[in-house]
Amino acid sequence: MSVPGNRLDPWINAYAQRARGMTASEIRALFAVASRPEVVSLAGGMPYVSALNLDALADTVADLLRTEGAQALQYGSGQGDVTLRDQIGQVMAPVGIQAHPDDIVVTTGSQMALDLVTRVFCDPGDVVFVEAPSYVGALGVFRSYECTVIHVPMDEQGLNPVALAEAISSARALGLQPKMIYTIPSFHNPAGITQGPDRRHEILEVAQRNNLLLLEDDPYGLLGFDDVGFGDAPPRAIRADDADGVVYLGSFSKTIASGLRVGWAVAPHGVREKLVLAAEAAVLCPSNYAQMTISSYLATQPWREQIKVFTETYRQRRDALLGALQQHMPTGTTWTAPAGGFYSWLTLPAGLDATAMLPRAITALVAYVPGTGFFVDGQGRQYMRLSYCYPEPDRIIEGVRRLAGVIDEELQLTRTFGTSHTLHQANGPSTPTPDLQ
Amino acid sequence: MSVPGNRLDPWINAYAQRARGMTASEIRALFAVASRPEVVSLAGGMPYVSALNLDALADTVADLLRTEGAQALQYGSGQGDVTLRDQIGQVMAPVGIQAHPDDIVVTTGSQMALDLVTRVFCDPGDVVFVEAPSYVGALGVFRSYECTVIHVPMDEQGLNPVALAEAISSARALGLQPKMIYTIPSFHNPAGITQGPDRRHEILEVAQRNNLLLLEDDPYGLLGFDDVGFGDAPPRAIRADDADGVVYLGSFSKTIASGLRVGWAVAPHGVREKLVLAAEAAVLCPSNYAQMTISSYLATQPWREQIKVFTETYRQRRDALLGALQQHMPTGTTWTAPAGGFYSWLTLPAGLDATAMLPRAITALVAYVPGTGFFVDGQGRQYMRLSYCYPEPDRIIEGVRRLAGVIDEELQLTRTFGTSHTLHQANGPSTPTPDLQ
Repeated sequence: MSVPGNRLDPWINAYAQRARGMTASEIRALFAVASRPEVVSLAGGMPYVSALNLDALADTVADLLRTEGAQALQYGSGQGDVTLRDQIGQVMAPVGIQAHPDDIVVTTGSQMALDLVTRVFCDPGDVVFVEAPSYVGALGVFRSYECTVIHVPMDEQGLNPVALAEAISSARALGLQPKMIYTIPSFHNPAGITQGPDRRHEILEVAQRNNLLLLEDDPYGLLGFDDVGFGDAPPRAIRADDADGVVYLGSFSKTIASGLRVGWAVAPHGVREKLVLAAEAAVLCPSNYAQMTISSYLATQPWREQIKVFTETYRQRRDALLGALQQHMPTGTTWTAPAGGFYSWLTLPAGLDATAMLPRAITALVAYVPGTGFFVDGQGRQYMRLSYCYPEPDRIIEGVRRLAGVIDEELQLTRTFGTSHTLHQANGPSTPTPDLQ
Repeated sequence: MSVPGNRLDPWINAYAQRARGMTASEIRALFAVASRPEVVSLAGGMPYVSALNLDALADTVADLLRTEGAQALQYGSGQGDVTLRDQIGQVMAPVGIQAHPDDIVVTTGSQMALDLVTRVFCDPGDVVFVEAPSYVGALGVFRSYECTVIHVPMDEQGLNPVALAEAISSARALGLQPKMIYTIPSFHNPAGITQGPDRRHEILEVAQRNNLLLLEDDPYGLLGFDDVGFGDAPPRAIRADDADGVVYLGSFSKTIASGLRVGWAVAPHGVREKLVLAAEAAVLCPSNYAQMTISSYLATQPWREQIKVFTETYRQRRDALLGALQQHMPTGTTWTAPAGGFYSWLTLPAGLDATAMLPRAITALVAYVPGTGFFVDGQGRQYMRLSYCYPEPDRIIEGVRRLAGVIDEELQLTRTFGTSHTLHQANGPSTPTPDLQ
């Protein structure tokens, strides 16, 4: 079937339809570049796990293996370890969720929960409404299940409920099959925006009125720096107000460690049963080893204080980023001021193209993610995502200084030769969305 | 959308077509029962991880976290840790596979590799040829992607290549789209049969002649007790003789520990690229923590000797099972004599029904998996899978004694009232396959 010496893929005609949509994301190519130490990476969303007490964790895990190793190393329940599910219930209390361990499905990172929910709900062509922009990993899942993804504009309070209702009506008028609404209400990736309490109610109401599942993705909910309208508490989850209509996704990737790959879904009873069966087909069961590591950590270590350490670290870095942007960015550049989480979303001066500019930025030893990665349709060239979670503050400041230099040069070029978009039109149309002004 | 107090699933009409095939397997219900200590479980396929040196593993992991914790707890590559991929190459050397780390994709157990290969290759309706019987977890994956699964008879050398070729022709004649052949050549789950060298070549030839991908699942390859035609070495993998036509699946679940959930796929170049993209959509990346735990274990612990300890343990248990079956089973009962792995496949005397008999077996404090779980079409009632991997030898002997008592009673009932199948016809037709006589 393969021709010797021929590097063409002999299986090219055998792949499933869905595999044709599987293409490498821009984040992917960037990871290789951004890992070079001389590059200031404002690209990746890697949590600052070095802030953990590694000695204490080492002791915890060694003790776990010595005393419960036979269980930690064995297959477990497809739904996840019941002790950990009980603890997850406690972890969610601050966002207002009251969930029984039975309502929770533990997954290999919340990415897998996204995959399972989509697998259970979406036939090819079914419509998922997402923010403009949206999380690149969710878009990859929706694409891999051949969903029709419709971006809905955001404003300074996040997903716009009026636009959402209109998008649903339009989709139905076109004969499409709306299935669910995917939203990241708190400290949005990549937009850095948080929905206030009223906004959350409005969005929930649109979902309920339209009988659409609301998929609430909340990896950053406990990582708030500032009051965003919820008093001293973290933002209240939408799920806290509708146990039947919302599937809530949580994760330990940002509050403990991403390398453990432990996330979860909270789902209505019938949906939860389907998710467990889908999870068993996908991976049999989540890792007992990773789950019991987290369970022991939660039981023996000061995890609430650890989250405060993380949050204070990220707040300082956010301040470094915003201060440097204010100081260095040329007129016409705007950005969001996140009240928590990892990201700010930057809008370039009119005519500039973040995708086209990226090679020059990397030459100048700074990396970011171009806005196009967060849309399914090629829009987003005027935007970029800046992550402040991983580099030290002085590196962030240096990175912004370099980035501002690149933007300044682009502006010069544009004034001399026309828009950079005109110079780099190879990758399709650039239709910047007006939703984040 | 939900009626208060109504326990019906409000989302019942919203699920994807594929979710309708997601139903609980018989193994699932059994796990709960089989975990009661008074029941001898010959049902589950849990490796005997207590044979590991837990103190040594605890020291290894503690050292890993202290010295490389920041990496072990961080996101990693979607394809998997490159050091581990290099080590996996060495682990596969005994089965004759020469693979570059680039050819390997690390997955969350080899179950996830099964899921990814199916996701990449199979549109709804595409045909997957599997052994009769086949691994229940693979059948669950194929079902979840709405594949058409066609069972092909086995004989004492495993998958029958003549029957395979005929099944492919018949499927094509019906206008179906054959996509791949799924086989477990070594120490088959559940059949306990191993393909000899000639048989492997014949099967590969059928795959090549028909331009079909061969999916070779080999979790037990290093767990052989007896020479099965390959000299002193473990059975040579089919992949060793065709790097372009075979996707090979391996796992550390049976050679180190299942609770780590680390498996892998070896795939041709183009397929491997698709698998990595599919993996990123599914889970972003496998756990660095689990991968580096295995990597450290392989680098610092005597893993080859540990596999010998496992193998000797399983050989003793296999002998206990076969001896007890010989001693206690009534005339007309037959079983396979596995040369490695975890399972024997038992055929009941004519007229008996393993599915119908299960509640009485559990009442008699012994559990097994009825044959129907290993077929997609309701056949298999005359069979059961017996696992000898987990219970101690004296418990295995006691379990077989109990099971023989139940079968004896069933035979009495059958002689008095007709076949037990007649008594328990609720679950659909029973059409025992003639392929394992």
